Amino acid sequence: MEVNGKPQRSIWVDEETSGHVQVIDQRHLPHEFVVENLKTLQDAAKAIREMHVRGAPLIGVTAAFGMYLASASFEKKDDYDARLLAAAQVLRETRPTAVNLFWAIEQQLKVLSHSTSGPERTAWLRENAIRLADEDAATCRRIGEHGLEMLEKLYAEKQEPLNILTHCNAGWLATVDYGTATAPMYLAHDKGIPLHIWVDETRPRNQGARLTAWELGQHGIPHTVIPDNTGGHLMQHGMVDLCIVGSDRTTRTGDVANKIGTYLKALAAHDNDVPFYVALPGSTFDWSLYDGLKEIPIETRSPDEVRLIQGKYRGELRSVLLTPENSPAINYGFDVTPSRLVTGLITERGICDASERGIAGLYPEFAPIA
Amino acid sequence: MEVNGKPQRSIWVDEETSGHVQVIDQRHLPHEFVVENLKTLQDAAKAIREMHVRGAPLIGVTAAFGMYLASASFEKKDDYDARLLAAAQVLRETRPTAVNLFWAIEQQLKVLSHSTSGPERTAWLRENAIRLADEDAATCRRIGEHGLEMLEKLYAEKQEPLNILTHCNAGWLATVDYGTATAPMYLAHDKGIPLHIWVDETRPRNQGARLTAWELGQHGIPHTVIPDNTGGHLMQHGMVDLCIVGSDRTTRTGDVANKIGTYLKALAAHDNDVPFYVALPGSTFDWSLYDGLKEIPIETRSPDEVRLIQGKYRGELRSVLLTPENSPAINYGFDVTPSRLVTGLITERGICDASERGIAGLYPEFAPIA
Repeated sequence: MEVNGKPQRSIWVDEETSGHVQVIDQRHLPHEFVVENLKTLQDAAKAIREMHVRGAPLIGVTAAFGMYLASASFEKKDDYDARLLAAAQVLRETRPTAVNLFWAIEQQLKVLSHSTSGPERTAWLRENAIRLADEDAATCRRIGEHGLEMLEKLYAEKQEPLNILTHCNAGWLATVDYGTATAPMYLAHDKGIPLHIWVDETRPRNQGARLTAWELGQHGIPHTVIPDNTGGHLMQHGMVDLCIVGSDRTTRTGDVANKIGTYLKALAAHDNDVPFYVALPGSTFDWSLYDGLKEIPIETRSPDEVRLIQGKYRGELRSVLLTPENSPAINYGFDVTPSRLVTGLITERGICDASERGIAGLYPEFAPIA
Repeated sequence: MEVNGKPQRSIWVDEETSGHVQVIDQRHLPHEFVVENLKTLQDAAKAIREMHVRGAPLIGVTAAFGMYLASASFEKKDDYDARLLAAAQVLRETRPTAVNLFWAIEQQLKVLSHSTSGPERTAWLRENAIRLADEDAATCRRIGEHGLEMLEKLYAEKQEPLNILTHCNAGWLATVDYGTATAPMYLAHDKGIPLHIWVDETRPRNQGARLTAWELGQHGIPHTVIPDNTGGHLMQHGMVDLCIVGSDRTTRTGDVANKIGTYLKALAAHDNDVPFYVALPGSTFDWSLYDGLKEIPIETRSPDEVRLIQGKYRGELRSVLLTPENSPAINYGFDVTPSRLVTGLITERGICDASERGIAGLYPEFAPIA
């Protein structure tokens, strides 16, 4: 998508000048656009661990590039295999609950079964990381194309700008390009369908106010930041045509784990007959799970993410204390929206019902219809 | 209620030393407990206008004391009546949408029909302001007593600490003492019923994280601050026994206008069979309204309350920017929770259904049953 009027991905190889892997250090957004060079395995591991990059797909691709950077540093050593396995372990430990991270590392470890030289392996790891990045962008683009069809139909009926509400950042900053929930928005906007996006601030980490608002603004999509408390009121008053959110994990039955607060918006959408869509790649389905509320573990994060908040004060980032010094806080990262509240799932293979039958229709190889 | 282990109201006359009217300058909470002397009409008007005091009942009582302070300054002047009417107008213009403010000023203007001297009028205004404050505290205490009965029954069933969720600050800081939503909590705690309160942060102005958490902590009630996004997840997992919130305006049919986001919690409570109570004095009913969603106007406040947030940094209060510089925001102050989502109304006259019939049963003089 665009930044300062130019096409931009969240991770890329700077072919022309440094040759380094580059990412956007997202900790500085929305206040500053900082590009970071990743030169070593340690740079990549740090970028993941300290959340310079975030979002499951981007974390996976960053780890894949980390394997390439590691390989380049010891490609002529005799103990190459042991060193690459050690690099894999360093990366695995950066965000130990990120499924995409493990998957991407496994994809890169396949290089060990190639009977080629170290430098050839480095080249293979580089190309494979680029391929994984391109595949992620292509998957998101397909999600966008299926969502676009739906938005085109809605716009043909309404003939006025579509108001779409989204929660958190399921945008291109969380993937390589396009994003998941945002992909239909970018494609629709680029096709001339007028949109206006309600951006949930998304406390406590404010990914909506910080990242989604920035993404949309850079790409020129009209949007308004709202407190997480506001969406229900907007839906009661006909100010939301549909909701599109992302997902961190979805059961084979269509229960959706996503950023905390998603469930409240789904309830409001249901209460006001507003369609509620979840955009996700097939890799987000956990085929082993049937009941999201009972089976999906919910991460508890630091209470200081609730008690303190970061923002810009006179050009610098500052964390200010919001609560009494002695008041405890609790910080659940996700909640589960039951499938009964989800209108449809927008995947790279098409849109389906949030039900075992609907999902199996698109992914028969993983969830065969009995 | 208690602050630093001593009984405390939100407004009082310092009989022992200064003789001044005193309030808590709530802008400094929860980080600092600042008592402000109100010596003049202008002091009182400024305290209301600049939100040193807030909450409809407390605003009204502060204005009543402002009339007393005004009278004391010109009690021997010939044009007393004109001066008192001018003072009333100054106070009316501080928060032009506050119904309690107008009501309290009218109560004090009755002094003009007393054929007494200026100094006697000053004394009457002082005593009447104290009476209005005491009546407000007594009303809140009765709300608390009716709520207490309900909590006693719930505790007798559960025999474990009751988990109560509240939104915004309907606490003693918004009234003279006890608060509305908090009154049952204070009375139950003082009676030895173990409680734990989930305190919604309440973006954008964070009245929950700043004021309710501080109140409860000072009185020794266990509590946890949560992002507004969290309540749905807690209710899905049986971690909330009931919700109690306040109200800014309630229709004769039981539709409840309260701080933005209340509706989302009511939806989650309904979806999970969690009782959802609204605590309010009878003066909060608007007997002229039948349909809250259609008839209650919703105030839009400054978008900068969303874009910026205030907290403590190295001992000082700072406002930090959360959003991109150029991203617009919108800030609706309230939403309306339809009566169908409200389990009951806790008033100073008892608990009733959130329905025209239920309310008329307690307030037959205002809403006679047909």
